Amino acid sequence: MSSYQHIKEEAYQANMQLPKLGLVLFTFGNVSAVDRSQGVFAIKPSGVPYEDLSPEKMVIVDFDGNTVEGSLRPSSDTKTHAVLYKHWESIGGIVHTHSTYATAWAQAQRDIPIYGTTHADHLTTDVPCAPPMDDAMIQGNYEYETGFQIMNYLQEKGMSYEEVEMILVGNHAPFTWGKDAKKAVYNSAVVEEIARMAFLTEQIRPQVPRLQDSLIKKHFERKHGPDSYYGQ
Amino acid sequence: MSSYQHIKEEAYQANMQLPKLGLVLFTFGNVSAVDRSQGVFAIKPSGVPYEDLSPEKMVIVDFDGNTVEGSLRPSSDTKTHAVLYKHWESIGGIVHTHSTYATAWAQAQRDIPIYGTTHADHLTTDVPCAPPMDDAMIQGNYEYETGFQIMNYLQEKGMSYEEVEMILVGNHAPFTWGKDAKKAVYNSAVVEEIARMAFLTEQIRPQVPRLQDSLIKKHFERKHGPDSYYGQ
Amino acid sequence: MSSYQHIKEEAYQANMQLPKLGLVLFTFGNVSAVDRSQGVFAIKPSGVPYEDLSPEKMVIVDFDGNTVEGSLRPSSDTKTHAVLYKHWESIGGIVHTHSTYATAWAQAQRDIPIYGTTHADHLTTDVPCAPPMDDAMIQGNYEYETGFQIMNYLQEKGMSYEEVEMILVGNHAPFTWGKDAKKAVYNSAVVEEIARMAFLTEQIRPQVPRLQDSLIKKHFERKHGPDSYYGQ
Amino acid sequence: MSSYQHIKEEAYQANMQLPKLGLVLFTFGNVSAVDRSQGVFAIKPSGVPYEDLSPEKMVIVDFDGNTVEGSLRPSSDTKTHAVLYKHWESIGGIVHTHSTYATAWAQAQRDIPIYGTTHADHLTTDVPCAPPMDDAMIQGNYEYETGFQIMNYLQEKGMSYEEVEMILVGNHAPFTWGKDAKKAVYNSAVVEEIARMAFLTEQIRPQVPRLQDSLIKKHFERKHGPDSYYGQ
Repeated sequence: MSSYQHIKEEAYQANMQLPKLGLVLFTFGNVSAVDRSQGVFAIKPSGVPYEDLSPEKMVIVDFDGNTVEGSLRPSSDTKTHAVLYKHWESIGGIVHTHSTYATAWAQAQRDIPIYGTTHADHLTTDVPCAPPMDDAMIQGNYEYETGFQIMNYLQEKGMSYEEVEMILVGNHAPFTWGKDAKKAVYNSAVVEEIARMAFLTEQIRPQVPRLQDSLIKKHFERKHGPDSYYGQ
Repeated sequence: MSSYQHIKEEAYQANMQLPKLGLVLFTFGNVSAVDRSQGVFAIKPSGVPYEDLSPEKMVIVDFDGNTVEGSLRPSSDTKTHAVLYKHWESIGGIVHTHSTYATAWAQAQRDIPIYGTTHADHLTTDVPCAPPMDDAMIQGNYEYETGFQIMNYLQEKGMSYEEVEMILVGNHAPFTWGKDAKKAVYNSAVVEEIARMAFLTEQIRPQVPRLQDSLIKKHFERKHGPDSYYGQ
Repeated sequence: MSSYQHIKEEAYQANMQLPKLGLVLFTFGNVSAVDRSQGVFAIKPSGVPYEDLSPEKMVIVDFDGNTVEGSLRPSSDTKTHAVLYKHWESIGGIVHTHSTYATAWAQAQRDIPIYGTTHADHLTTDVPCAPPMDDAMIQGNYEYETGFQIMNYLQEKGMSYEEVEMILVGNHAPFTWGKDAKKAVYNSAVVEEIARMAFLTEQIRPQVPRLQDSLIKKHFERKHGPDSYYGQ
Repeated sequence: MSSYQHIKEEAYQANMQLPKLGLVLFTFGNVSAVDRSQGVFAIKPSGVPYEDLSPEKMVIVDFDGNTVEGSLRPSSDTKTHAVLYKHWESIGGIVHTHSTYATAWAQAQRDIPIYGTTHADHLTTDVPCAPPMDDAMIQGNYEYETGFQIMNYLQEKGMSYEEVEMILVGNHAPFTWGKDAKKAVYNSAVVEEIARMAFLTEQIRPQVPRLQDSLIKKHFERKHGPDSYYGQ
């Protein structure tokens, strides 16, 4: 058995959640799962329909984006995953989708404002939207640069990838991550729902204020940090 | 068998309706069912996925929020349920969700105006939206204060909890209740549909008037009160 | 066997289509089917969940709204159905729902403008929205008056019930009809889709013009009239 | 066995995808598949519900719109398909739907602006919306003229049918095509999702700019052209 079997299985199971959660049309999305000890990750093969996937079809790739095992071509977004795994040492899984509402905010090139506790349960800031890259970066090593665009924008906003596990890439779509592939998929569903609620909130009341700081802090700390009391 | 088996079963069945009705993503919601004679209620354990629930996993809690039976931690919103059961003597079930449209109105901090008979079939007033609490209340015993915020706002509006079985908590999300857990779940689906219709109504005609009083009265009395003629 | 078995079966089958088509939440809708030779119609019992229905539970009612057979109370909207069957001699089925988009237009008290061929395939005019009734009519024999409000508004607009098989009742919701219950259900799905498309059309282009006359005529005549060439 | 069996099967399978993808209500759509060597195509019979379809019910039609084999009347849009097959020599399948969001843009008579990479993955231009035809064309050989309207508008915009595989017909609805019926169905789902995202994008940010050229080029070339690296 391949020494990568566990991450192939993890990536497969996580990928299969995307259509179940309504986050992808056709093959518009991909999930990867990392094995830090071996320095590789398993990722969806490019353009293969979800119903045809199996753990064996996952492609094993190193942190420079080179295929280590697997007969299929990996996701076209593989280099973005590779860059993030290489530089963010504590993440275990990454998801990219074109989910409808989050992608609409990315197309609008707007951060998603924090309007309620559903948002604050998951992060204490607006969901950041990295600006589109300049022409040179796009024409160059595009997917590689996308990874750096994500990292640089988080840093510029003073955000930590351990606290903010989701971002929009302007004109493109959301990326999410987490301690494992399952958590990254969870975050991709969360950002879609936050995006949908924020859209509706602004329609219902165009000049709506952002959430007050005390409520942001309270809800985030209910779920996270030393005194959290959500979950088992 | 536990003397709480009947409310564990009731709370379990009602909780399982939330994902079926499309009212929750992941674990973003909870239902409780009360036993007045024993002074306790059964509530969903915190953060446990719906597909993993069973009647045995429901947690039994008293009206001060203390766990009486059960090995799991109860919902993080348990104290809000406890406060409402303690002060509202005729309710039998409570539901909290983050359903999309009702939550968007809560985030907009707006009452949902009564625009049609679908709304009037269930209540004769706008759906109230309690304002967000002040910083001291949020930093203090937050979920406990949420219960009082709900009670105080209903009272301030001159509404009775027996006539108005749903409320939005500003920046947060809806709470509903009823004579039993099933009715409370019914009300959580109703407030979501009312919220969706009101959003669309204002989009279709921004300066739309509220429903005329005679129609409010007629539709509510068709379903409620001494001369009702809806149902069996 | 009851001499009404055929319309009980027809009404049952048609009622069961409403939840399948996503047109009702809980029991917010009803279908009836008529037997002209016996002067009665079969209608859904009031407040009974769709999953508990059976042909035997349908209630047989005459054109004055009196129950002829059946142990359950008929739909609270029964008198509206009775009035329409009594005065419109060629209809065979009637549907009332609170489907989301059509109800939002009714709440906005607006006719649904004819914006495209999807609409023109079914009727050559805007979908009429009858104004809410005056207080006296509402406080009086409400459901009976609703039937007259529908008939009178169609007449006032110069429309024939044989050509326009759908209407919105202002502040309330849609009613549709047809040669049989199945066609009436078809029309209830059509008005919901037309309502949704018209809402989106106005959002995408606020000052959008109505459909040109030649296109209205062409599409309606493709499906209806002596030279129609749609269907088998 | 009919010498047309393979295209009957292809057209049947492709038609059955439309309801699965949520692109049609009732019979509001049709797919055809061509056999160039025999100069015919197989198309859905008119007005037959999807659940009653079978490969045998597909109608075989030549490029002038004459039925060659089959006992049912072909889709009322058959002549539009015939015109496109006759003049566009490399297409293998055509789809027409009234999918909700794409139809709303058609009703608004607007091209769908290119706002993001989801769009650019499929075409490098706005999705064109052909203007409604003039009265004479509508009153004449309407479906035949619709085919020419589509061809002429593409030509007027300087677009090739091999690069742009989707169009809206103003006041009507989308048409899509591709190398085979399956690809044409894929494109009909893509245009619906693009239409939905563009609607949301403009709601979230009314004066949003179109996508920058470098990103359009990059994403299209990832999926298409000599250096594409998407898929297997």
